[in-house]
Amino acid sequence: MNTHPFDNAIALAATGQDGWEGRTSPDYANFIGPYGGIMAAQALNAVMLHPQRLGEPVAFTVNFAAAMADGPFEARARPARTNRSTQHWIVELLQDGQAVVTATALTAIRRETWSGDEAVMPAARAPQELAPPTQPARVAWLGRYDMRFIGGSVPYPWDGQDRGHSRTALWVRDNPSRALDFPSLTSMADIFFPRVWLRRGKPSVVGTVTMTVYFHADGAQLQAAGAGYLLAQAQGQGFRNGYFDHAGHLWSEAGVLLATTHQLVYFKE
Amino acid sequence: MNTHPFDNAIALAATGQDGWEGRTSPDYANFIGPYGGIMAAQALNAVMLHPQRLGEPVAFTVNFAAAMADGPFEARARPARTNRSTQHWIVELLQDGQAVVTATALTAIRRETWSGDEAVMPAARAPQELAPPTQPARVAWLGRYDMRFIGGSVPYPWDGQDRGHSRTALWVRDNPSRALDFPSLTSMADIFFPRVWLRRGKPSVVGTVTMTVYFHADGAQLQAAGAGYLLAQAQGQGFRNGYFDHAGHLWSEAGVLLATTHQLVYFKE
Repeated sequence: MNTHPFDNAIALAATGQDGWEGRTSPDYANFIGPYGGIMAAQALNAVMLHPQRLGEPVAFTVNFAAAMADGPFEARARPARTNRSTQHWIVELLQDGQAVVTATALTAIRRETWSGDEAVMPAARAPQELAPPTQPARVAWLGRYDMRFIGGSVPYPWDGQDRGHSRTALWVRDNPSRALDFPSLTSMADIFFPRVWLRRGKPSVVGTVTMTVYFHADGAQLQAAGAGYLLAQAQGQGFRNGYFDHAGHLWSEAGVLLATTHQLVYFKE
Repeated sequence: MNTHPFDNAIALAATGQDGWEGRTSPDYANFIGPYGGIMAAQALNAVMLHPQRLGEPVAFTVNFAAAMADGPFEARARPARTNRSTQHWIVELLQDGQAVVTATALTAIRRETWSGDEAVMPAARAPQELAPPTQPARVAWLGRYDMRFIGGSVPYPWDGQDRGHSRTALWVRDNPSRALDFPSLTSMADIFFPRVWLRRGKPSVVGTVTMTVYFHADGAQLQAAGAGYLLAQAQGQGFRNGYFDHAGHLWSEAGVLLATTHQLVYFKE
């Protein structure tokens, strides 16, 4: 009854071996179809729920192959290879028997080793000192995240100026707040508005075509992050002939690198 | 007769719809099994050879699921979704009916748009002014690449010092030289020796588990790069509990960003 909208959105009902049924959630609607992050979380959740899963997610790549229509979808996740401590997955979300999302995942049992991070969280004011965006949220999913921009917020009103860079940093957490887990971290890896809008100071038709997330944190570290804010930072790398990519990082409020992420985005002009 | 070792290594013979047979090449042997880059190129080549392919590669993710044994392998590539100008692929390389490599690819017909790069090639001395490594190549594949380290070369003799960073830049091309194409660029995206060796100044058992390549260049821009050197740069981001990732970039000798790449690597200690 009191289920968080995120848990509702990623819920899957088993339909047989390697198969589930899910349903799009109006809470995470985007301009056309659902927010990409929620589809990524749904695909990963099929792996999380699989009775044969070994270990926790370490790497996840999701490809957005077509627009998802509002309504039910089929999820398929199968272990393509299971080793002693690692497992490789192939995942698809389908509608009318056609792939809408494809994905691969690696889950693994991790053990403690030497550790050291090179991607260090930038200095930033505390989230509580920063105001939420004042623009009205034109799509439902924006209301599902509490965002506090540190720099590189949506350049609105549009000025059409080439900023020469497309770097954004923000604090983000679920709204209402919710303890972090692998699906919600995956969804937040897609939180960045299109880099080309920032770079050029104007909107254009865009769509993420593929996103990869590397999980540096294990379940215990996600638990430690709890319902706190994450610092999310991304910057475009190359924009050319209809596609651009960005590289992103997600740290816990305490400064622990939780995940790195990359994506490639279609843009019309 | 005079075929380049790279073309020999990625050659695939069609065995039916969506199926091919390939064979590992001793020219690209690594410590255990083949060099990861050549397996990635083999997987991508199944897409390149597919009669239903639409457009050119834009994104490619390859997962190394198990050690490949010397000898034949089966390649399977199927278009999971074909749209008007994009196509999503699922690829597997198998031995004994078991997946050794899984991959997804996006191919697309690109059209000219506004373009701008943020990942700019670092200043570097010309490849001709830099000497090749003097260490003997202990594995065959190292002999297949002409490498000229600009900075961050293998820290040999091992000193066990934590360098605090793991950034490498080098010039690289095929040896003997060969005109660049999508499979060879994919292979070179895996050229970086393990970042953890550089960071810690000592070797450890490692294995790449997944690599993603985003192609910013189209076929014409690869042709323009020709048989010249590429500037390849990579740096580790997070090292924790058995896995680290790095972010990399590949530019043509003329400074055109050809591809960005990321990978996650297992390390034993």
